[in-house]
Amino acid sequence: MKESLRYRLLSAQLEMARQASRSVVLVVTGHAATGKTALINELNHRMENRLTEVHALAPSSEERARPYWWRYWRRLPARGRVGVFVHGWYGDALFARAEQRIGPGAFRDHLAEIRAFEAELAAEGIALVKLWLDIDAEEQGRHLQALQRDPSRAWQVKDHDWQRHLQHGVLETLGREMREATEAEHAPWRRLAGGPRHAPAKTVERRLVTAMAGPLPSVTPPEEAVTPLAEAPPRLADLPVPTDKAMDKDDYLERLARAQARLAGNAREIQRRGIPVVLVFEGQDAAGKGGCIHRLTSALDARLYRVHRIGAPSDEERAHPWAWRFWRRLPLDGRVAIFDRSWYGRVLVERVEGLASPEAWRRAYGEIRRFERQLLAHGAVLGKLFLAVDKDEQLRRFRARAETPHKRHKLTEEDWRNRERWEDYREAIDAMFAHTHGVDGGWALIDANDKRRARLAVLDHVNRLLEARLDAPR
Amino acid sequence: MKESLRYRLLSAQLEMARQASRSVVLVVTGHAATGKTALINELNHRMENRLTEVHALAPSSEERARPYWWRYWRRLPARGRVGVFVHGWYGDALFARAEQRIGPGAFRDHLAEIRAFEAELAAEGIALVKLWLDIDAEEQGRHLQALQRDPSRAWQVKDHDWQRHLQHGVLETLGREMREATEAEHAPWRRLAGGPRHAPAKTVERRLVTAMAGPLPSVTPPEEAVTPLAEAPPRLADLPVPTDKAMDKDDYLERLARAQARLAGNAREIQRRGIPVVLVFEGQDAAGKGGCIHRLTSALDARLYRVHRIGAPSDEERAHPWAWRFWRRLPLDGRVAIFDRSWYGRVLVERVEGLASPEAWRRAYGEIRRFERQLLAHGAVLGKLFLAVDKDEQLRRFRARAETPHKRHKLTEEDWRNRERWEDYREAIDAMFAHTHGVDGGWALIDANDKRRARLAVLDHVNRLLEARLDAPR
Repeated sequence: MKESLRYRLLSAQLEMARQASRSVVLVVTGHAATGKTALINELNHRMENRLTEVHALAPSSEERARPYWWRYWRRLPARGRVGVFVHGWYGDALFARAEQRIGPGAFRDHLAEIRAFEAELAAEGIALVKLWLDIDAEEQGRHLQALQRDPSRAWQVKDHDWQRHLQHGVLETLGREMREATEAEHAPWRRLAGGPRHAPAKTVERRLVTAMAGPLPSVTPPEEAVTPLAEAPPRLADLPVPTDKAMDKDDYLERLARAQARLAGNAREIQRRGIPVVLVFEGQDAAGKGGCIHRLTSALDARLYRVHRIGAPSDEERAHPWAWRFWRRLPLDGRVAIFDRSWYGRVLVERVEGLASPEAWRRAYGEIRRFERQLLAHGAVLGKLFLAVDKDEQLRRFRARAETPHKRHKLTEEDWRNRERWEDYREAIDAMFAHTHGVDGGWALIDANDKRRARLAVLDHVNRLLEARLDAPR
Repeated sequence: MKESLRYRLLSAQLEMARQASRSVVLVVTGHAATGKTALINELNHRMENRLTEVHALAPSSEERARPYWWRYWRRLPARGRVGVFVHGWYGDALFARAEQRIGPGAFRDHLAEIRAFEAELAAEGIALVKLWLDIDAEEQGRHLQALQRDPSRAWQVKDHDWQRHLQHGVLETLGREMREATEAEHAPWRRLAGGPRHAPAKTVERRLVTAMAGPLPSVTPPEEAVTPLAEAPPRLADLPVPTDKAMDKDDYLERLARAQARLAGNAREIQRRGIPVVLVFEGQDAAGKGGCIHRLTSALDARLYRVHRIGAPSDEERAHPWAWRFWRRLPLDGRVAIFDRSWYGRVLVERVEGLASPEAWRRAYGEIRRFERQLLAHGAVLGKLFLAVDKDEQLRRFRARAETPHKRHKLTEEDWRNRERWEDYREAIDAMFAHTHGVDGGWALIDANDKRRARLAVLDHVNRLLEARLDAPR
């Protein structure tokens, strides 16, 4: 019988790497002095370590200057790989609560975020295994003392281990609450006895084989209702019938200069206060997103902003959950990230063109709301602007592009194809407004049939967003 | 005449993006109060900002915990894109020297590093444009005072601007030395008058158009002789004729346990002192790299090391200079990165299979020496191990793999193909030794015909490397 458990683990891992359709996340947390490191080392040595990554990091300055979950998103294993997290997102909540750095409400909120995060990962083909290592207080104390007395191992005992020993009862209670709140078929907990006779790697190996090769449970991410804003979500039908009268050029230039000066001042103050800004531009083809973004960036210091044009994902991006490529582009505090098309592609082009399954794009509404809530929780200013043109105006612009040499590059076959699905897009756009216009980020629907008015409206909207933040009590 | 300069710049940029075969790096440095930011903003607004990135960063903790050049490598624009660096690698040297944080020798060394760095980028299809903004001391003083008096612009004046004003003469001299030392056809300097009547963006635009669309000058990177070690570089022919007698198993296990315990202690101390470790494993197919790495990592804390198996590059990696994918994998201080195959692929498989041009792989010797010198300059321990088997032993192992179910995955068609080119590889391997065995990293040629002896030899070599560092005076 060559088919030992160890061979099963290795061969499951290699097969997972070959298929590269799922990945495995293993979280190891629990009490101090339970042999977490020894267990991870042992598991790691039974796997192909070229396909495994272990993460036990104190957050870096780059991580602290971005929304909380960024540090975990950036470390998610690519398809085919295994990521091991020591304490991970559980340790942050657990120890912060035990040390009274957060209250019970914030603790429960963190657990709810975890539930949603793990459901999102599972729905994207990440199999989760979570271990809690147990030990009773008395044995823990004896073990810590024994370690401390042994010169070759005393280094293993840190101050926080003793602190956690003193808080054994508190951690036990919090740990139970934590596990109960985050238990799920797609992210099951397993409690193991830890300590000197340390945790049985074999049991874990079996779990890992299942995660690598077993069926992936179907996941229903937690429902998340959009918390509505005072005003109803916009609808394309609300747009007024376009007037034929273009705005007077001199009038436009004067107002543009004033709006840009106002933006420059606001942006400087936003930067001084270290507030990150995320601006999302969506709109039909030829609605003038590029022109609006250009008028916006003209007023910004080039060192402070970055424009992200979202097209087809790279192969590294395709090897991760769909939202990964937006997480990786989030700005540092005090910087501005401008998205020329965005995560909303999931519920627009990917929906209409069938690039995402109905299950996937429907789920995306909740994922997007959560993502945006996390940006706001970090203190970001979030602006979402939809530039709308009507079908006739789009046609005029397509023709103008076709005829103007230095604009021809902007017009592609795809633009004409998309135009044929105008009604499908309209439905998707209105559904997007309905599902994602809330306290966690309201949409500004900009009438873009007149370019000059649209540019001024965009500047005005962004200015008002920044000013609302600057005026808000800190 | 629609063919204005501005349209030429934009269209050159779009064409460069379409072809995605080169990228442009623009460095802007010089005196304070010369309008660098205004110039960059103006240029940025005349380009497609979705294809441009501006970098003006203070190094983050992640950057400080890695070799100096990491911060620039990670920010290099992908093919088709423009990267703008404010001061960039010039500012670091210039201001450190002006403020006496480094001496004249270190300044000159930094300039030599810059020369080599820029030559390497240019050889990889990056067109460089470098601007020095000039102003005379008197005008600078007047301009700073005027700025300071204007409430809406006073924020632009920083303390260091006044400091640099006081050092105008010093910076003028150092700037001249810097430009002279780093002037090259592939990385030309241009001096521009800065200040209130700020720099003529037009002149720069012309330079940029040339960089985007003009012929790329051919580059001969500076010669860099390997500084030899006391002992001569190894040669494959030096290996002794393998004995038939395998090492006794009990003896092996006992010595293995001792070596691993020794490694565990060394690694702990290395980590405590925050020393990064980079280990490179090369060797013929089936030489047993994986097994040796496994015996090594068994003694390491899984939280501290990462094994990088180097295969085909991802598309993001292909869009950057070839060494980029190794830079991005460099460990943080106190961590161990183990490369299962490495940058030496450039002068082994890429040479033998014709994946790199003769010009490219010949140039790589110098690039590799510089890369490794930069690791060492940062304080890394660098170990380079070549595991060698002879042709008969390789055949035995291929056959054993073919016959053993859980090893079959290790044997591919490619292995048999490589075997046919045994002599070509031998030549490439010996050339690699000759060119890259020096004070900046010596090779250990490990006789891998007996797996047990090889594993012990690897552990012993790594232990000795770590101990040499730990014993060295700090």
